[in-house]
Order: sequence, then C-alpha cells, then structure tokens
Amino acid sequence: MAEPDERDRDDRLYFEDFHVGQRFTSATHVIDTAQIKAFARQFDPQPFHLDEEAAKGTMFGRLVASGWHTAAITMRLQVESGLPIAGGMIGVGGEMSWPRPTLPGDVLRVVSEIVEVTPSRSRPDRGVVRVRSETRNQRNEIVQILDAKLFVPRRTPTAPG
Amino acid sequence: MAEPDERDRDDRLYFEDFHVGQRFTSATHVIDTAQIKAFARQFDPQPFHLDEEAAKGTMFGRLVASGWHTAAITMRLQVESGLPIAGGMIGVGGEMSWPRPTLPGDVLRVVSEIVEVTPSRSRPDRGVVRVRSETRNQRNEIVQILDAKLFVPRRTPTAPG
Repeated sequence: MAEPDERDRDDRLYFEDFHVGQRFTSATHVIDTAQIKAFARQFDPQPFHLDEEAAKGTMFGRLVASGWHTAAITMRLQVESGLPIAGGMIGVGGEMSWPRPTLPGDVLRVVSEIVEVTPSRSRPDRGVVRVRSETRNQRNEIVQILDAKLFVPRRTPTAPG
Repeated sequence: MAEPDERDRDDRLYFEDFHVGQRFTSATHVIDTAQIKAFARQFDPQPFHLDEEAAKGTMFGRLVASGWHTAAITMRLQVESGLPIAGGMIGVGGEMSWPRPTLPGDVLRVVSEIVEVTPSRSRPDRGVVRVRSETRNQRNEIVQILDAKLFVPRRTPTAPG
C-alpha cells in the first residue's frame, strides 16, 4: 500500500499555518442516555448522571451528562474532524466552563477560533496556539467553552537565537 | 432498611463547613495500559494514547494517558473519596493544566485545597467554593492541576436581601 499516513500528515496544519481569527467546525456527535450513564458509572458516579428518578431531587432536576463527558466528546470531535494539527492535539492546559448541561439526545459540535499564536522562546521547532472552542448543541446553545493552549510543531524550525 | 442515603448525606459538607486552607486527600487509582487505550479509542484516538510503537515517533516518545482521562479519573477519585460535598460535585468551570503526562502503572491520588469561599449574591441557598486539586503520581509528581469553582449548598439558607 501507499503510505496513507504520509498523505494525512500533509493535510495537517503546522504552526506557520495558523493565524488569529481562523475558525474550524467539527462534525457532530449525538449523545444518548446510555452513553451518559456508562461514562458516569466509570468516571462520575453521581445521581444526576446515573438515574432519571434520582436526578429529580438534585440541582439539575433531570439526568444530565458529566461535564467531563462533554469534555471527552469535545476532544473526540476535535481529533477526528475539528482541528487537524500536525503531530496531534497536545494540550498544555486551559480554562473551561460549562454554561449549561449536556442533555440526552443533544447533538454536539465544536466551533473553534484561533485567539493567539505564540512562537516558543526556547524551542525553535514549535509554538503555542491558543484556541477557544465552543461545544454547542442542536439549539446552538453553548454547553462548554474551552480556552486551551496547544503545542504545535513548525513545518520549518526557526534558526536558533 | 434504614435510610443509608440519609446518613451519608449527614457526613457531607455544606457551604458553612468550608474554609480557606482546608485540605483533602483522595484514595488512589492505578492506571494501566488497557485503561489508557480503551479511553483513547473512545475519546482521544491519537497514536501516543493508542499504541506503544506508534507513540515512539511522537512528542511524548512513549504511550501516555489522554489528559482528559487523567481528568476523568480525578473526578472519580474526588466523587468517591476526595471531596464529600452535600448535593454532589457540581462544577461551574475552572482552569487546568497537565505539567507532565500520566504513564501506564501510575498510582494517582488527588490532593485538594480550598482556596476561596464565596457566598452567592443572588442565591441564599448556596455559595461557590474554589478548590485547587493536584493529581499526583506515586513519585509525588503533579500530572494535573485543576483550579475549579464548585456550587455548594448551604445547610441553612441565609435571609434574602
């Protein structure tokens, strides 16, 4: 076979390809009750993520997805269809918020905007790109905002200096 | 049966119980290669989380856990043994970073400190508690820092006004 990985890699974006204001939109993911409960059993076993009846007596009043589940789905969408970064999506960290919960049946997608592009002072082979990603549902409501810093390799390393 | 939930609830902490400087330490969780790959297949399918050989050619140089996997395990530890908050752990959002990757075989635990306790201006029945949680491995190295704001209900609502 030809080298499909090589071709994929060529389609991906390097540090030089990014500029402030660029926007990306991912494909969609439908989250259902079974997914919400399965994630919760493994990582966030609280009544409002596990059981419809028990959820009624909580602050949410109904079954909602764990915020970390929303974050994990967001990552999946970014990796597969959102931000095609050369070398992969490697986060240094970031700031996140969940303005409203993700509900069973929600159709999620991620809308990202590049907000900062910073060459590394110590590493000529990479830089840091700051991305603000809004995870939105089918009503265009924001369920998660993630403002993350990502390591992005340069296509051509700069001269040391 | 007696009401075990009621008793559990009594052991949990309300807004009035928190003060700056309080510390909590969770139980531990051992993360292994199978868990790392299973999480990655579902939520973060990148070579450095999926395959030892493929990981060698990446920035990490070896198989590492997804940062979101570290975050999800942190949540599990907090819910079950870390922060016993009345009404559950409900995050508004926060700031996070991953100073180093989580590796197969790491034994993770979460050390938390209360850094801010803020009554709600609009809601007499709750407040916001800011918690800085360090997820540490068996060498006491920090793999994740999460500075999160949590909704915490009051035991006794304040008078409105």
